[in-house]
Amino acid sequence: MEKIKIGIIGAGRIGKIHADNLLQMPQVEVVAVSDLFAGPELEEWASQRNIPLVTKDSGAVIAHPDIDAVFICSSTDTHVPLIKQAAQAGKHIFCEKPVSMDIRQTREAVETAKQAGVKLQIGFNRRFDHNFKRISEHVQGGTIGTPHIVKITSRDPNPPHKDYIRVSGGIFMDMMIHDFDMARYVSGSEIDEVYAHGGVLIDPVFAEYGDIDTAIVTLKFACGAMGVIDNSRQAVYGYDQRVEVFGSKGAVAVTNDYPNSAEISTAEGVFRDKPLHFFLERYQEAYRAETRIFIACIREDQPVPVNGIDGLQAELAALAAKLSFMLQRPVKVTEAMELAEQHAVFI
Amino acid sequence: MEKIKIGIIGAGRIGKIHADNLLQMPQVEVVAVSDLFAGPELEEWASQRNIPLVTKDSGAVIAHPDIDAVFICSSTDTHVPLIKQAAQAGKHIFCEKPVSMDIRQTREAVETAKQAGVKLQIGFNRRFDHNFKRISEHVQGGTIGTPHIVKITSRDPNPPHKDYIRVSGGIFMDMMIHDFDMARYVSGSEIDEVYAHGGVLIDPVFAEYGDIDTAIVTLKFACGAMGVIDNSRQAVYGYDQRVEVFGSKGAVAVTNDYPNSAEISTAEGVFRDKPLHFFLERYQEAYRAETRIFIACIREDQPVPVNGIDGLQAELAALAAKLSFMLQRPVKVTEAMELAEQHAVFI
Amino acid sequence: MEKIKIGIIGAGRIGKIHADNLLQMPQVEVVAVSDLFAGPELEEWASQRNIPLVTKDSGAVIAHPDIDAVFICSSTDTHVPLIKQAAQAGKHIFCEKPVSMDIRQTREAVETAKQAGVKLQIGFNRRFDHNFKRISEHVQGGTIGTPHIVKITSRDPNPPHKDYIRVSGGIFMDMMIHDFDMARYVSGSEIDEVYAHGGVLIDPVFAEYGDIDTAIVTLKFACGAMGVIDNSRQAVYGYDQRVEVFGSKGAVAVTNDYPNSAEISTAEGVFRDKPLHFFLERYQEAYRAETRIFIACIREDQPVPVNGIDGLQAELAALAAKLSFMLQRPVKVTEAMELAEQHAVFI
Amino acid sequence: MEKIKIGIIGAGRIGKIHADNLLQMPQVEVVAVSDLFAGPELEEWASQRNIPLVTKDSGAVIAHPDIDAVFICSSTDTHVPLIKQAAQAGKHIFCEKPVSMDIRQTREAVETAKQAGVKLQIGFNRRFDHNFKRISEHVQGGTIGTPHIVKITSRDPNPPHKDYIRVSGGIFMDMMIHDFDMARYVSGSEIDEVYAHGGVLIDPVFAEYGDIDTAIVTLKFACGAMGVIDNSRQAVYGYDQRVEVFGSKGAVAVTNDYPNSAEISTAEGVFRDKPLHFFLERYQEAYRAETRIFIACIREDQPVPVNGIDGLQAELAALAAKLSFMLQRPVKVTEAMELAEQHAVFI
Repeated sequence: MEKIKIGIIGAGRIGKIHADNLLQMPQVEVVAVSDLFAGPELEEWASQRNIPLVTKDSGAVIAHPDIDAVFICSSTDTHVPLIKQAAQAGKHIFCEKPVSMDIRQTREAVETAKQAGVKLQIGFNRRFDHNFKRISEHVQGGTIGTPHIVKITSRDPNPPHKDYIRVSGGIFMDMMIHDFDMARYVSGSEIDEVYAHGGVLIDPVFAEYGDIDTAIVTLKFACGAMGVIDNSRQAVYGYDQRVEVFGSKGAVAVTNDYPNSAEISTAEGVFRDKPLHFFLERYQEAYRAETRIFIACIREDQPVPVNGIDGLQAELAALAAKLSFMLQRPVKVTEAMELAEQHAVFI
Repeated sequence: MEKIKIGIIGAGRIGKIHADNLLQMPQVEVVAVSDLFAGPELEEWASQRNIPLVTKDSGAVIAHPDIDAVFICSSTDTHVPLIKQAAQAGKHIFCEKPVSMDIRQTREAVETAKQAGVKLQIGFNRRFDHNFKRISEHVQGGTIGTPHIVKITSRDPNPPHKDYIRVSGGIFMDMMIHDFDMARYVSGSEIDEVYAHGGVLIDPVFAEYGDIDTAIVTLKFACGAMGVIDNSRQAVYGYDQRVEVFGSKGAVAVTNDYPNSAEISTAEGVFRDKPLHFFLERYQEAYRAETRIFIACIREDQPVPVNGIDGLQAELAALAAKLSFMLQRPVKVTEAMELAEQHAVFI
Repeated sequence: MEKIKIGIIGAGRIGKIHADNLLQMPQVEVVAVSDLFAGPELEEWASQRNIPLVTKDSGAVIAHPDIDAVFICSSTDTHVPLIKQAAQAGKHIFCEKPVSMDIRQTREAVETAKQAGVKLQIGFNRRFDHNFKRISEHVQGGTIGTPHIVKITSRDPNPPHKDYIRVSGGIFMDMMIHDFDMARYVSGSEIDEVYAHGGVLIDPVFAEYGDIDTAIVTLKFACGAMGVIDNSRQAVYGYDQRVEVFGSKGAVAVTNDYPNSAEISTAEGVFRDKPLHFFLERYQEAYRAETRIFIACIREDQPVPVNGIDGLQAELAALAAKLSFMLQRPVKVTEAMELAEQHAVFI
Repeated sequence: MEKIKIGIIGAGRIGKIHADNLLQMPQVEVVAVSDLFAGPELEEWASQRNIPLVTKDSGAVIAHPDIDAVFICSSTDTHVPLIKQAAQAGKHIFCEKPVSMDIRQTREAVETAKQAGVKLQIGFNRRFDHNFKRISEHVQGGTIGTPHIVKITSRDPNPPHKDYIRVSGGIFMDMMIHDFDMARYVSGSEIDEVYAHGGVLIDPVFAEYGDIDTAIVTLKFACGAMGVIDNSRQAVYGYDQRVEVFGSKGAVAVTNDYPNSAEISTAEGVFRDKPLHFFLERYQEAYRAETRIFIACIREDQPVPVNGIDGLQAELAALAAKLSFMLQRPVKVTEAMELAEQHAVFI
């Protein structure tokens, strides 16, 4: 069986993770990696992995005749042009979230990929987490009946660097976008309307960049269910990633993952270690699973499980949340969409 | 030491629970019980407990010269006149929640008790639950730093009878009022603004009475924290009563209570029994504790831990939630208060 | 319905608990209490509870014409003569464990009660604990199939006073006797053979009295199952009372009970409060249940659920364990029984 | 940095797992694999992994000039000669447990490796499990004070095939040997004496081969602590691997690992999925860790964490348990050792 050949665009932390996961798959070859800051360090990294081509030029990766698919892991502002180029070159695409911060451009990129007949998978890695997957299976399988309430807790262990805050797109587009996707995933329904609460409770630096660090967003789903997402940029006890779906026949909930199950009982109380620290630890297996599935979809010519429309819908919900926060009233996703259509760059 | 003498007004389920709990306290005597439907059954019940006076006339209880304090456990519409009468007769008062569905009347009743110098404790029993008390202790003690997010889940095992739905005052005043008090209790802060989401997902009968059966309400606290409460009239797995407070130094969360800790592992999976079924099981000890503390406050002439103002504030939050639900926008508690002042009967 | 009238013999801690639990039952009257050290304090205690007779003379309680049943809560060495006297006086008997430390005498006492046709319930309170009861129900109900392995952990929070150690009868007869009864209860089978390991790991004072403070005993059951009990006189984190039964179709296990379910997550880790401290906290409800059931058995003339034979069998297992520990080899319960028959006082 | 070159001897399930784990380490090369039944299937497997040499001849692997170390994963009866050959050829050795079923031969093999100055690591994979490692860290770190009681539960999900039972060496040498090593690992002490209980409760086929399927073994440690291990060949709910160490300052315990944390609450009860099914799932990471550490010890010329003496001591404990079971009395490890010295083949 012929190997599927991959090019990596953007060799930051997440690009390297994808590369290493791909390298563990016997049927995959990583043949090129590009990064704006490619240099001796990246060359060394690539050489240890037998990746033949290292370049600063993403175009060289896309144009590479051997390459079947690219992983776009560069900064968000480059996603749309890269998707378009890769699509036009007939390459399948795995793109990190968000596609862009401009709904119109996201829509165009998604459309281009569709027209070109290439696969476009968005990096909503959490759908492949063992816990959330089990929730989805139970909801789909009817165990809990009709969903009534979806609750998502999503808190980071510590805030990003302020250089990142500046370009992040804000808490809704950068952080809660994962949770909007999760809400759609576990409910099996579109988000219809959101109402966003938020504030700067952790660090005034967020305010300097017009951002907030804590938010609660309520959701109305098209199916009639309701939901709530809470985000914090700083949970000192570690990455807090919990989901619960409550329905007419019961509820399903998942807790965090822990590095071990050891419970210590002493005269002072009962103790255990903190949850897994952050996404690299918690979603290690999920990252592997999303690449495995992307490769399998290419090989068997199946539709990818998280596509451009999923990317677009999560962005629309994030945009609606941002609007709601600014306007201090509930905002429908359709209202956000219409507004986005009228402004080339919203955020 | 002289015994404190109590009269019970309203001998329904909750009145009888209070009576039985009082009867277990060696320093307390229950000397009278009144109920609109007093008859042979209640006489028998009272005689088994050596309660000398059984009457249909609440006035006879209030006027009883031996009685130090009354427990008002009759229907909500009788609370305000009974509080006023008891206060004027110089009796201490324990009154079930809500005081009334009319903010102005609640305020008057609270004021009357204050003027009369009698104690007025409101039956927010959940404050005396072992789990929620421990949350409050940790928040007050600074374990979790400054509170940022308060999350309250409160779901009943099954909907009330439709006769009750008709007069309940609606989900916010009847059910979520407990959670508004809990939010104030665990955060140590007033509620500033609410936004209410809700719908009829369980049974159309709620719609017939202008009520809903499922709701999510977000909160802004005066201290800057945020919160969310979710209510359902039907959690098929039993009473679901969980609270979590997240802050700058950590989080504290409580789960439900279970009838036992037995865990069964078989070829099919791992099983345990459902949570305690409803409030009588879950709050059995909390009911005892609230009466013990009320009696202790009388004996030692201390302020009661949940007073008329607490009753009023929870009602205001419930009213704001109802307004928010109707107006589909966030509503400040002050706005609800002003509105309430202009209308004698709002709900 | 006529009240059942009770006399309490021995007004130490456990005698008072039984009295208070009986006093909460509307159909029961406590009419007398005796204690070797009866004095003003006990008089005060009894007067608060309207117990008319306080005496130093247990004979006066047994001979009291109104009394239907006695609770024998005095020191172990008095149990046998008191059982015999009460039985001959036609009184039903609730007796604390162990009946005695002399198998022959225990047998005689049990026999006397049987001949007299009075009920004799032994104070194996743990059978009435919500957790262990649930285990027994599942084992009896077949949920876990045929029992293969029974595991019992039983550790006290702190060692008894040395004055008590001296007269306790040793770890097997004083402490593990509860676990031998538990083993019989949850397995539904007799103990056939034991092998005892043990040592002084906590405090040399145990050695001074020929006792040990830590022990592991393996069991062979008549049904073919195996078991193991571990005891420690000092678990610094609190009372540790866990049971697990493993069988052909699965396993059932219970954990300890905790004062609340609050879980605190901070930068240091995840914490919760220690288990309930000791038997008074953990078995509060179990003590109530065992008296309720004893009274019900009298009222309805039903056999008691833990009778003299149960007391005898647990003592035999304890004796076999003591022998095994001394002889450093496995010992059959029948061997212990034969030996006991030959020696009037073994321990 | 030069790669460490490995040869695999025995390409059954466990040999292949080690190979795949080694292949994920950039600094390691697998250059040869031997198996008595090498054929097209193994050739295909090796070719997918770029393993150049596939042979039926283990000697060819040991003699291979490039190879630095061998993984001995062939049947137990081949371990001793292979260790000796590899040691004499100057190759480092990773050998699956047990080294042999003959203590004298094991001792010789260990001695040969020592004389040759090669590293010999024994495949006690469980020492590298995240849970058990955390126990050891806490015990070593003094969190629980002086160990008093060690409890190990170890149950397989289903019995091995009868062909395997025949050659397995019996429950003590084949299965409980892991637990004897675990007991030494978590206590930090040698086992001094054992007493073994056991029987055929699951399947009479065990009796046919002179084996048992269920066992409880109590331990005396040299340090004064006590312990108990229980083994079952069939836990229908999955692999049951729990350890608890109780000491003067507290206790540390670990539960099983589960495929996810999803908890389902319905009208019937609360459910979750079974524990991870068997060792391949539960110890996946532990297998990776033990190979990583073996490689690191070679590279940095450090002593391996589980050496031949550890292999020998676990075998001695297993032998003592077998003796104890046959003689129905406690047996010291030294007694087993002396006996073993007198008989070339004991089992």
